[in-house]
Amino acid sequence: MMMTNSQALLAARYGSHSNLPEQLIHNSVVDQMLAHRSVRAFVDTPLPTGTLETLVAAAQSAATSSNLQSWSVVAIEDSQRRARISEWANGQQHIRVAPLFLAWIADLSRIDRIALDLEKPSEANRYLEMFLVASIDAALAAQNATLAAESLGLGTVYIGALRNHPAKVSAELKLPARAFALFGLCVGYPDPARPTSVKPRLGQRTIVHHEQYSTNHETQEIAHYNKVMNEFQAAQGLPAIAWTQQAGQRVAGIESLSGRQVLRAEIYRQGFEIE
Amino acid sequence: MMMTNSQALLAARYGSHSNLPEQLIHNSVVDQMLAHRSVRAFVDTPLPTGTLETLVAAAQSAATSSNLQSWSVVAIEDSQRRARISEWANGQQHIRVAPLFLAWIADLSRIDRIALDLEKPSEANRYLEMFLVASIDAALAAQNATLAAESLGLGTVYIGALRNHPAKVSAELKLPARAFALFGLCVGYPDPARPTSVKPRLGQRTIVHHEQYSTNHETQEIAHYNKVMNEFQAAQGLPAIAWTQQAGQRVAGIESLSGRQVLRAEIYRQGFEIE
Repeated sequence: MMMTNSQALLAARYGSHSNLPEQLIHNSVVDQMLAHRSVRAFVDTPLPTGTLETLVAAAQSAATSSNLQSWSVVAIEDSQRRARISEWANGQQHIRVAPLFLAWIADLSRIDRIALDLEKPSEANRYLEMFLVASIDAALAAQNATLAAESLGLGTVYIGALRNHPAKVSAELKLPARAFALFGLCVGYPDPARPTSVKPRLGQRTIVHHEQYSTNHETQEIAHYNKVMNEFQAAQGLPAIAWTQQAGQRVAGIESLSGRQVLRAEIYRQGFEIE
Repeated sequence: MMMTNSQALLAARYGSHSNLPEQLIHNSVVDQMLAHRSVRAFVDTPLPTGTLETLVAAAQSAATSSNLQSWSVVAIEDSQRRARISEWANGQQHIRVAPLFLAWIADLSRIDRIALDLEKPSEANRYLEMFLVASIDAALAAQNATLAAESLGLGTVYIGALRNHPAKVSAELKLPARAFALFGLCVGYPDPARPTSVKPRLGQRTIVHHEQYSTNHETQEIAHYNKVMNEFQAAQGLPAIAWTQQAGQRVAGIESLSGRQVLRAEIYRQGFEIE
């Protein structure tokens, strides 16, 4: 029996041997999401006029806590600036190639300035709560921008390594106090010569908990996911490694944090007390 | 001249008197985002079969740092549990009415269990960096779920007040150590008798910075936004208050944090050292 496109997307997302979630409701938005993959091979073709404005309008349309809009985005097109940022982010080549790099900023500085104008304090901005509000706001906005980009036929990849050298990034982007560059996003046309595949995820029973948190199915689900990932690696010509080994290694020691073990001190230096 | 639907959406998003961004690229995904509004008036109509599975598949299709998938979601349908959560979240009535409440969890506990199985440490999970990774992962996932819900004709509203009583929420959801409920999301059919309007946002020049952070246009842009919001309030029959006043008040003192000034201690108690 032929699979429909929707079924094929679901099979790619969870691995063909998984217990696929049944009765999924498909439409063009859901299917676009299912087809998501991070793109790291771009061509340097310029973006269509209006791309940045469209991504920003999409981003601003996401929900924002108390309508505070406590985020900003720095749009970087200058190739020399992208080259410097690439260097500070483990030399990731796609930052140099993709024509647009968006730095997503947890931004309480704007509300600080508003409070200063009103001659009022902004005490709440000292707390972890407000840093978290700004970070979540920025992430919701960025995800809308990502989906908007994909709807235009563009590819994206998030750059967490923007946090490897926060002081250099803050200086380069002239960020004021209480503005922090959380992560980057490369935006460009995917290189058709180097297509990427949808990466399978953990089965839904590992991620979803009904009414209360439960690990009942976890051991068998994760063992199964190791097999799914091994099949994915084989299909991609990648070396075989269990996902659990990869995940374990990623958190084993501070050496895996690429310098980000000092993040709290760096964020403090950037004006967030995180009390 | 008649406005097209796309133009009308843009005018609603930025206020009709704003300098609207020109040359926006419209398609059904972008226009769905532009039309987003948070829904707080639901009917208790049951959701279609497959809704939860669809939202979770959408959520899992978002990017995740190093493929760690460091988040979980607790799906709450039980009306008594929703009533308790509503009580702890300032009594927000929509948590009782909407048939599905999703609690989005920053979840490093799964990787802890994997490390334990491998008889390896998970030192990196002690750091702010990993808490931030898990929080951003959860937010990207939740935003996909939100857009998937909207594509199915459902409405949603994020519930930050889930952080008002973290210890009660953690106990109610039986969260293990290093799993923290970041925010909730109500999902249901909007009440057609109480429609809501798109809320205008700050002009793009306030949010977007080109190459480097700049406040050049900020004062005039924010003054203009105060007017846009006053017009919105008038149209909605809401009392007139400047957005700057609202925003300033929201961060003036810790009393505006609804108890969340102790969030860092609560998150520590939940197993995150945030070093």
